[in-house]
Amino acid sequence: MAGWGGFLFSLLNYKTEKYVIAENRRIGILFRLYQLAVLGYIIGWVFVVKKGYQEKEEAIQSSVITKLKGVTLTNTSETGPYLWSAEDYVIPPNGEQVFFVVTNYIETPNQRLGFCAEVRIGRKLAFSESRKTGLCLNSTGTCEIHAWCPVEYNKRPAEPLLSDAENFTIYIKNFIRFPKFEFSKANVLETSDESYLKRCFYEKENHPYCPIFRLRDLVSSAGHDFQEMAVKGGSVGILIEWNCDLDKDYSLCNPQYSFTRLDINLNNSITSGYNFRYARYYKDQNGETYRTLYKVYGIRFDIMINGQAGKFNIVPTVIAIGSGVALLGAGAFACDMILLYMMNTSSFYRERKFEIINFK
Amino acid sequence: MAGWGGFLFSLLNYKTEKYVIAENRRIGILFRLYQLAVLGYIIGWVFVVKKGYQEKEEAIQSSVITKLKGVTLTNTSETGPYLWSAEDYVIPPNGEQVFFVVTNYIETPNQRLGFCAEVRIGRKLAFSESRKTGLCLNSTGTCEIHAWCPVEYNKRPAEPLLSDAENFTIYIKNFIRFPKFEFSKANVLETSDESYLKRCFYEKENHPYCPIFRLRDLVSSAGHDFQEMAVKGGSVGILIEWNCDLDKDYSLCNPQYSFTRLDINLNNSITSGYNFRYARYYKDQNGETYRTLYKVYGIRFDIMINGQAGKFNIVPTVIAIGSGVALLGAGAFACDMILLYMMNTSSFYRERKFEIINFK
Amino acid sequence: MAGWGGFLFSLLNYKTEKYVIAENRRIGILFRLYQLAVLGYIIGWVFVVKKGYQEKEEAIQSSVITKLKGVTLTNTSETGPYLWSAEDYVIPPNGEQVFFVVTNYIETPNQRLGFCAEVRIGRKLAFSESRKTGLCLNSTGTCEIHAWCPVEYNKRPAEPLLSDAENFTIYIKNFIRFPKFEFSKANVLETSDESYLKRCFYEKENHPYCPIFRLRDLVSSAGHDFQEMAVKGGSVGILIEWNCDLDKDYSLCNPQYSFTRLDINLNNSITSGYNFRYARYYKDQNGETYRTLYKVYGIRFDIMINGQAGKFNIVPTVIAIGSGVALLGAGAFACDMILLYMMNTSSFYRERKFEIINFK
Repeated sequence: MAGWGGFLFSLLNYKTEKYVIAENRRIGILFRLYQLAVLGYIIGWVFVVKKGYQEKEEAIQSSVITKLKGVTLTNTSETGPYLWSAEDYVIPPNGEQVFFVVTNYIETPNQRLGFCAEVRIGRKLAFSESRKTGLCLNSTGTCEIHAWCPVEYNKRPAEPLLSDAENFTIYIKNFIRFPKFEFSKANVLETSDESYLKRCFYEKENHPYCPIFRLRDLVSSAGHDFQEMAVKGGSVGILIEWNCDLDKDYSLCNPQYSFTRLDINLNNSITSGYNFRYARYYKDQNGETYRTLYKVYGIRFDIMINGQAGKFNIVPTVIAIGSGVALLGAGAFACDMILLYMMNTSSFYRERKFEIINFK
Repeated sequence: MAGWGGFLFSLLNYKTEKYVIAENRRIGILFRLYQLAVLGYIIGWVFVVKKGYQEKEEAIQSSVITKLKGVTLTNTSETGPYLWSAEDYVIPPNGEQVFFVVTNYIETPNQRLGFCAEVRIGRKLAFSESRKTGLCLNSTGTCEIHAWCPVEYNKRPAEPLLSDAENFTIYIKNFIRFPKFEFSKANVLETSDESYLKRCFYEKENHPYCPIFRLRDLVSSAGHDFQEMAVKGGSVGILIEWNCDLDKDYSLCNPQYSFTRLDINLNNSITSGYNFRYARYYKDQNGETYRTLYKVYGIRFDIMINGQAGKFNIVPTVIAIGSGVALLGAGAFACDMILLYMMNTSSFYRERKFEIINFK
Repeated sequence: MAGWGGFLFSLLNYKTEKYVIAENRRIGILFRLYQLAVLGYIIGWVFVVKKGYQEKEEAIQSSVITKLKGVTLTNTSETGPYLWSAEDYVIPPNGEQVFFVVTNYIETPNQRLGFCAEVRIGRKLAFSESRKTGLCLNSTGTCEIHAWCPVEYNKRPAEPLLSDAENFTIYIKNFIRFPKFEFSKANVLETSDESYLKRCFYEKENHPYCPIFRLRDLVSSAGHDFQEMAVKGGSVGILIEWNCDLDKDYSLCNPQYSFTRLDINLNNSITSGYNFRYARYYKDQNGETYRTLYKVYGIRFDIMINGQAGKFNIVPTVIAIGSGVALLGAGAFACDMILLYMMNTSSFYRERKFEIINFK
């Protein structure tokens, strides 16, 4: 049994731990219960619930195309009737993932660069991005400014001018890809005929895979009232979640939509809305520039894509099993501690479990 | 050997399992093969292929700047010659990650808000975002509408008006960062002289790190024909993948480009293209607004950045080794089961492997 | 003890490995040190530092709203005074996550489509996206082109025209969500009164949670000089990092801001800046189109959201403990190797550790 030959030969013997059997019912039952608990945890929780045998991919790639439809007529005493269609009320108009829909506005037409007096609305100065010239007038109690005149002085309409915007529809096309698994899919039903996509509206129960949303429904799904939100504007998140088990069929990987208001604080107080200004520039016959300033209030839609995919993979499976097996060993260690140090038969047990090798 | 002193002293003894050697060749070989398989799996698959000793980072941060170059002349019988340069055909013009290049368009100049009759093209009504006034005319068989008149009535040109767009070039500058490893890099070759970046075009084999792409090449790499796609428009994804092994040299972390058409269904049927409308607003001498409406067809480019980095880390290394060691133990359990319950020498083996401690 | 009854009965016995105690101080100390090292690694590194008992979420969802404030007056000899406010210098104006602030520009007013000669500035041709007609003129040494005439021929101002832009402020509203943990928060202090948000400016030490930034401070935090950067433009990343330990209180999950210049190479050489062109279109009394071309230089701000959240979860805890336990076993294996093959008492030890079962 000496030398390399013997060593190699001995490798073919099966070495296994020698066990002692402690005929102690209580410890035995304790240990078996522990083993059952670990097995239950591994099979029930790690494998069935958490799908621990799957490799996960959370870095979803996505592309979103949006298209709005609808038209509304506004009619203010100052600027007369105006027909709003998608090229006007969607900013930017090119079908992006984050876009803004005008629901209310203040128009200040025919502004020209020059000098004018500040305007006082009640006790506050009217908005004007301007520079003071230093000259102040006693008659009005305001100062002269260098600004686009006349300054914006109208108040925000108390009712949204584009209240019909609640009937506008958004068509959302979402293409996703899980690069690790080379899996890609779109949210538009492939089986459906094109005419379905022309008629349908998203409904959680009846039409969960129809990607066409009415603005009113979107806002009310987020728990708010469209008309109320339309006055000062706001921000709504459209979450598209793709939780896909790629061990199952391709057709079972479908998006879930959910809606949430983004511009809200913890204590549910609504912030000051959402608005910004933009201007349209014109030139008169003399080549002088004038502009129409729009302060637009509206709803910003943020389409957020979230997803994870799982697929069977040997590595996480082995890690999950391996760590469970190791845990079983940890239980034996605890039972040993009880037998060795906490029972009146401890010294007897110790003698039988341990064999002393005295090297001297 | 009793009392605390003795206990602490005994801690310095080395306790090790007592083994029994079963001189059973078949079980021995089985067990060694199993051990070899586990070792092979751990070293070969987990360490070499999957780099299980690395901590992974998938949350890549990135910033993309794009710049298009090229110019083309369109000449339609209605609106005369028009020179398109990047400020016109790129929407939005400010170098974003997702942008749209006009390849075809319908222009409807000099629209004014007013009342006009719907227009019938063949059996379909012409597009007009409008509101019916309720008045219908027998002579034309259509109804009066409140709209921007005249309504858009031209048909989409059968050949793309900006067919030269295939020669436009995109310069993509991509800066990435892996925050966990504080690693950052750009896709523009640092060693290269500036003149290289003025001459080169991306080619998979010869110029893999030149970030300048001809539109025609982009579309054909995605498996489609530019001229065909340019008619109705479409959507192309440019994927930039950064798979970096940060244990290796900085210069070896380089992007891989790939191209895919996004607006396609499973059954390869092409969807209805990509288009949207925008308008340019003018005022005449009387201060009345009129506009030119453009329905633009074109290709939307979505630059998607994807990446993961790996770097040696002790935690995943230990988890990988530990779970492998635990697996070795699981094999011994299986071999024991065979020896204890499935062989005719089982009772003999059981007597030698187990020592019974009778506590009574 | 035979038959199924006996087998089930024996399951209630506690089986445990039989140990041999090697009274070898050196190996004993070695093994205990190893055990201490493994325990220290698991408790200190995996649990305390790396929080290995937590499930991690890196797929942060976020929505960003930005609003710029400030106004500046430019005065060039050619086009006279011009007042820039946010609707002009922010491109796009609608409060997006990536936006551009104009700091310098070249204006080329009253361009019309037509034929003109190329312009030579020094030895280089002036920029003109154009098509050569083939006709060349000896008098100027340049060729006739079909272009928007006159071509852009001014040089970039050596001092930024909007140098006051350094005092503009950005208000960043960032809403985040960790979908796995259903946790959401905004970067705007909920406890603070609104008036605080009107006065405060971000400062790393004094006002770390005030989301209002002066452009000059942003650029200098990124290690650059605003005025220098404003001449040719550049790109600045604003990183908002949310590293949240969700086992702790909600109020302790707060964003960290950091700032970095993006358009820089490894060797710190600054690239050619950031600029693009856009045009404003006008029509004269005859309905002919002319335009003003702007080449704008400026700073692009990329707001990047990054974050990870951790929360106690049983699965990673078990994996961390289990792999540690398995490691302890690996140490015993190493000590055994020493005792069995590398000491002069090896054969004695081997005889005691192993018991041979001879099946014949």
